Amino acid sequence: MEEVLREYQELNGSHIEFIPNAPTALEFSRIVHISRPVHFAGASTLKWSDTYLVEMMGSTPINVAITPDGFLADALVEGPDGQIYFVEPRTESMTMDSLLHSLHSPTGESGTTAICYLQSQNGNLYTPHRARSEFNSLRGDVPKDVPWATEAFGYSPDAVNLWIGNRQSTTSIHCDPYENIYAVVRGAKHFILFPPTEGYLLQERNYPRAVYTRPHPGAPLELTPIEVDENSNEASMVSWASADPTKPIRGTMPLRVTIRAGETSTCLLVCWWHHVTQSGDGPGGCGIVIAINWWYDMEMRGDKWVWLNALRRVSQRGDWNAPHLSGTDTVV
Amino acid sequence: MEEVLREYQELNGSHIEFIPNAPTALEFSRIVHISRPVHFAGASTLKWSDTYLVEMMGSTPINVAITPDGFLADALVEGPDGQIYFVEPRTESMTMDSLLHSLHSPTGESGTTAICYLQSQNGNLYTPHRARSEFNSLRGDVPKDVPWATEAFGYSPDAVNLWIGNRQSTTSIHCDPYENIYAVVRGAKHFILFPPTEGYLLQERNYPRAVYTRPHPGAPLELTPIEVDENSNEASMVSWASADPTKPIRGTMPLRVTIRAGETSTCLLVCWWHHVTQSGDGPGGCGIVIAINWWYDMEMRGDKWVWLNALRRVSQRGDWNAPHLSGTDTVV
Repeated sequence: MEEVLREYQELNGSHIEFIPNAPTALEFSRIVHISRPVHFAGASTLKWSDTYLVEMMGSTPINVAITPDGFLADALVEGPDGQIYFVEPRTESMTMDSLLHSLHSPTGESGTTAICYLQSQNGNLYTPHRARSEFNSLRGDVPKDVPWATEAFGYSPDAVNLWIGNRQSTTSIHCDPYENIYAVVRGAKHFILFPPTEGYLLQERNYPRAVYTRPHPGAPLELTPIEVDENSNEASMVSWASADPTKPIRGTMPLRVTIRAGETSTCLLVCWWHHVTQSGDGPGGCGIVIAINWWYDMEMRGDKWVWLNALRRVSQRGDWNAPHLSGTDTVV
Repeated sequence: MEEVLREYQELNGSHIEFIPNAPTALEFSRIVHISRPVHFAGASTLKWSDTYLVEMMGSTPINVAITPDGFLADALVEGPDGQIYFVEPRTESMTMDSLLHSLHSPTGESGTTAICYLQSQNGNLYTPHRARSEFNSLRGDVPKDVPWATEAFGYSPDAVNLWIGNRQSTTSIHCDPYENIYAVVRGAKHFILFPPTEGYLLQERNYPRAVYTRPHPGAPLELTPIEVDENSNEASMVSWASADPTKPIRGTMPLRVTIRAGETSTCLLVCWWHHVTQSGDGPGGCGIVIAINWWYDMEMRGDKWVWLNALRRVSQRGDWNAPHLSGTDTVV
């Protein structure tokens, strides 16, 4: 693996390409083949004010992910018992008006109130074979696909997702088996990226699962371990990267990318590891962050998946699989 | 490696795609990404008769590779000392007329005379930065590049080669670090193909080098070991696949492809292993075989080369590196 790591870094460096406009289908096809981040300015012109969003969505209930102080959903969190858990957020239903109100208010930072992040990741704008979505009334503004990407792949996206949050939300380091086109509408997203060849340095370990619950309406959120029935198909443990990418990680050469309102990026090509923070569109990074992403299935023919899967196996079979270690003991 | 092998075979099977016409640049870009053989009928209309070739080339000397009975150049051959060598052909200069005359005559099969194969593989038709070639007078008939491939890659070929032989010539199993577009003009080429993931099953071993020499003009060819000076940069041993792909090789799922006159194929994508035999354009496979290939550099950015190189390392570090074993002891 060290030869693979070194050769990849020597061939690719830490270069990120910036292109003034959207690519042609052929240019994008080359980008997918190379699988390195490319950044397109001026590819999106969508404007969504709070007033417009509230007017369009009205009283439609939307599913929002909620966690206590410092949004850490799908992340490693130390429970009251001292155990590190892989914890999922609580999902609550609210209107767009109450979501935006919550995101604008400085609550949550005190540790007393819940932090919201609309991040349902289930094709909340579009998925094939589902005619309606929570965000039906916004669909007129969002293209069902990215024409140059659809032409390059030869098929439409598997899911189109809307993300609305503020600077209190962080997405912990992980990777997805999708090609991902990411466009920012308001605010900015800050990515720390690692290529698939560096995944084995991110110290994947197995963690027991937990979820945030609310014992009764209005009560504070509680971290609750998930008991998995032995006969169930559900996994009782989750393999998750324990390294902290905001600090140096031995052997890695991370890329740092910020996508701002109006920009589109392919920084999340298949199986690239990413850690995401965000800044709102208000002064000092307060305010709202809105992004839209199009997930395209990766090409399964050929050897790309075989290679990525082999890299994941190396990563998951490392001798760092010690479930009880702290999630932040980054080796420097 | 077995998981990689099995997963690749499950995802890809032994399917070869046939397309009636040449692809667009975008279609070809997808083919390069998938890196599986695709076959285009009717992509080439070039006709070259013997008379035409002789007329165009006149008395221009051309470099032709020569071996004894059964053309086996760049192949494993047992020497008179019982040692298996990696043997290179002798190169002799002749006219097109004498080459074609030799290829039409049934000599060589008796074991007494040399067999010719024009296979200089040095960009004998075109390479960048070389204005002239042996085959200047045929250049007017051959496109300098394949337009859909040049558009897809974004650069021109590194070499364009002309191949002229007959059914007595075999090219032993090997792989090249190039993307290769292969067009047959006369006769047919028969390929046995293995994807890069199966290379480690082809039993690469290290062999001493030899070359065919002729002690004096008219003398029979002799296999002569190459003595490499210790201080030279040249390798004294060559790592070469010892498995015989005409027999079953344990674990592999070879593809068999024939490219006929007028057809073009991408069956030799980067680092695909290939064994090649041929049939002439005359009755019973006698006669002449002519092919042209365009070698494009592979895309070095991204992780493709890193992956292919990792596969080669696995292959070359196998515990089958026993130099003195016979080249044909295929494990079934």
